[in-house]
Amino acid sequence: MIKVNSHYLKLKSSYLFADIARRVRDFQEKNPNVSIIRLGIGDVTLPLPPACIKALHQAVDEMASASTFRGYGPEQGYDFLREKIAQHDYQARGVDISPEEIFISDGAKCDTGNFQELFAQDIKIAVPDPVYPVYVDTNVMAGRTGEFKDERYEGLVYLASTKENNYLPELPSQKVDLIYLCFPNNPTGATIGKEELTRWVNYALENKALILFDAAYEAFIQDENLPHSIFEIPQAKKVAVEFRSFSKTAGFTGTRCAFTVVPKECVIYTEQGNPIELHKLWLRRQTTKFNGVAYPIQRAAEAVYSPEGQQEIKNNINYYLKNAQLIRTTISDLGLHCVGGENSPYIWIECKRDSWEFFDLLLQKAGVVCTPGVGFGKCGQGYVRLSAFNSYENVQEAMQRIKNIF
Amino acid sequence: MIKVNSHYLKLKSSYLFADIARRVRDFQEKNPNVSIIRLGIGDVTLPLPPACIKALHQAVDEMASASTFRGYGPEQGYDFLREKIAQHDYQARGVDISPEEIFISDGAKCDTGNFQELFAQDIKIAVPDPVYPVYVDTNVMAGRTGEFKDERYEGLVYLASTKENNYLPELPSQKVDLIYLCFPNNPTGATIGKEELTRWVNYALENKALILFDAAYEAFIQDENLPHSIFEIPQAKKVAVEFRSFSKTAGFTGTRCAFTVVPKECVIYTEQGNPIELHKLWLRRQTTKFNGVAYPIQRAAEAVYSPEGQQEIKNNINYYLKNAQLIRTTISDLGLHCVGGENSPYIWIECKRDSWEFFDLLLQKAGVVCTPGVGFGKCGQGYVRLSAFNSYENVQEAMQRIKNIF
Repeated sequence: MIKVNSHYLKLKSSYLFADIARRVRDFQEKNPNVSIIRLGIGDVTLPLPPACIKALHQAVDEMASASTFRGYGPEQGYDFLREKIAQHDYQARGVDISPEEIFISDGAKCDTGNFQELFAQDIKIAVPDPVYPVYVDTNVMAGRTGEFKDERYEGLVYLASTKENNYLPELPSQKVDLIYLCFPNNPTGATIGKEELTRWVNYALENKALILFDAAYEAFIQDENLPHSIFEIPQAKKVAVEFRSFSKTAGFTGTRCAFTVVPKECVIYTEQGNPIELHKLWLRRQTTKFNGVAYPIQRAAEAVYSPEGQQEIKNNINYYLKNAQLIRTTISDLGLHCVGGENSPYIWIECKRDSWEFFDLLLQKAGVVCTPGVGFGKCGQGYVRLSAFNSYENVQEAMQRIKNIF
Repeated sequence: MIKVNSHYLKLKSSYLFADIARRVRDFQEKNPNVSIIRLGIGDVTLPLPPACIKALHQAVDEMASASTFRGYGPEQGYDFLREKIAQHDYQARGVDISPEEIFISDGAKCDTGNFQELFAQDIKIAVPDPVYPVYVDTNVMAGRTGEFKDERYEGLVYLASTKENNYLPELPSQKVDLIYLCFPNNPTGATIGKEELTRWVNYALENKALILFDAAYEAFIQDENLPHSIFEIPQAKKVAVEFRSFSKTAGFTGTRCAFTVVPKECVIYTEQGNPIELHKLWLRRQTTKFNGVAYPIQRAAEAVYSPEGQQEIKNNINYYLKNAQLIRTTISDLGLHCVGGENSPYIWIECKRDSWEFFDLLLQKAGVVCTPGVGFGKCGQGYVRLSAFNSYENVQEAMQRIKNIF
């Protein structure tokens, strides 16, 4: 008899964004005349940068001719892209990351979701709360948690990120082996300074723990004092893996390209405490279960690093940050507390009532879609997330409608 | 202490194709003047069909404008593609598969590799021998095997596919829960008739087993009596999942698009024997760990089903099959036994010596790269695989060089 992975049955209801989509669909069916403004799911709205479009067309033309056609590429990505990333995103900031340490993929969701496969089942895991659901759900599926009780999975260590600690979680009071961190944070938009991040790296060094650092929103950092990479922290290469994405940086949510940095000096351990190179394990995983990113897509990602590409993505990010500024100001003027939006496309709003109640209020009364904070965890209850990914005109309209409710 | 998934340490050496690549690289470095002809890894050489190129350019243009730009798509793929697949690949052949049962992905390697996540760890698994290494390695990584001993992993049931049984394995003598089948077969090129396939479906029905049917090479089938899909067999929808790919069908190895069919009536079981819909589990897996295939790539796959696309892929497949015919004839004329090549791009050759020895002979004396059969399993020892994916001129030259050795 073919038996199910029983851990799947522990997963609570369906995926957050699917829930939201259903409520929005139901509302739209009943109210076909309302023009809904979506500030919920963090999906970009500006088109691909012209530099990427040009690179895509060129690469497609290469695929049309036998002499320039490309079949299977390296699973870990083409060198032309890995070299650009190493140079622009790391070496230019004084961080010594080599092209071989960079693995190109089709998304940070896939990578943050798949990475846990490399670890033993009985490790202790710490996740932020609120948290990007993928970190938690993939570990539930892998059997690293107990049942879902009182809004949390048994066995996980939740790191509360609240108004009280300025949305920067404390170091865990118990010993943990694997730590998920995300800065600029999804969903709160909070950032972390070098000093605080150094404390996490030191914790990992002292406890032989590993940090999975999700930096998918790094491109939104404006404050020059903030680290763009965990590898700006001394010795972090021994204890951290970093996830980045072109999704939010260059509008690739529908184009699919991301990358993961696994430093060669990073090790994990056998039961007996012998070190194993993490880089070799991830390479084995990727060559066995993944076949690389489409050639034209990798050329489009490469174009992000051209002088035109750099200017174009900067313009796009500034556009979204202007939206974020308008949201911050409007929400603050209404007397509601919020964070984020300055180095992040997300604004995290204390709504002083149940998250889904506030979600329904915004949807029903203003036709605006937000993301209920409680969907990201217990500490997200009483909050909602607004995203700056929309047109400035739509954000203006949405803010006007929200003002009218209060 | 962050501990490794100890099952990874059971994996024998590195991945087959990486081994081959290293030997070829070493040979080329020592013999820079030899023009190597690659008939090893099954990578296509003809460019993308013009219909796909046109669709790609159009979709890229859509991504350049805010009004037509596409961000996140559905994780399971766009309806426009799922509908075309359901209609052309299934309904047109009298097989009742609906668009909702089709999951678009970036590769059959990913899908065949990831699908095992849905099952309990203590199931009994049968794999063909010789076998596409991904089926085995992903189950090793998941802890469903013992150690690698005497060229096989303990705990797996190997289904010998040999000259004696015409490369069609017998039903397992012991009870198994999960069965991997691949027809037209990789690596042997053998095919399966409706009657034989019905025996497997009946076995699965009787034993509450599940068949993972890899039909990545379906497009090469010429014999009108052969089934193109396992779902042509009555009741197969209750006990089978099918994997397909555009890689070999339409030259998408570097473009990345495939799909998996999970019928809604297919169930697996809890420990207590209660049925669970497999479709819901895979949907949960994909929405949690995958973010869909790039929009332009899905448009390119859709174009495969246009009248022009259908004609163009037919021409390409005929081109490769002409190569296969030449390989078959040459090898047979040399007095060597072979199968495949008639409904498949692969020819499986009995080489009457060690597989790697024959690999080295062809490489060193003819500059031709094949794939050593033993890389696919114990029953592959004494065989090599030649692939028809190359230009006709190169295949002619390769066959001439091989004739000159013997």
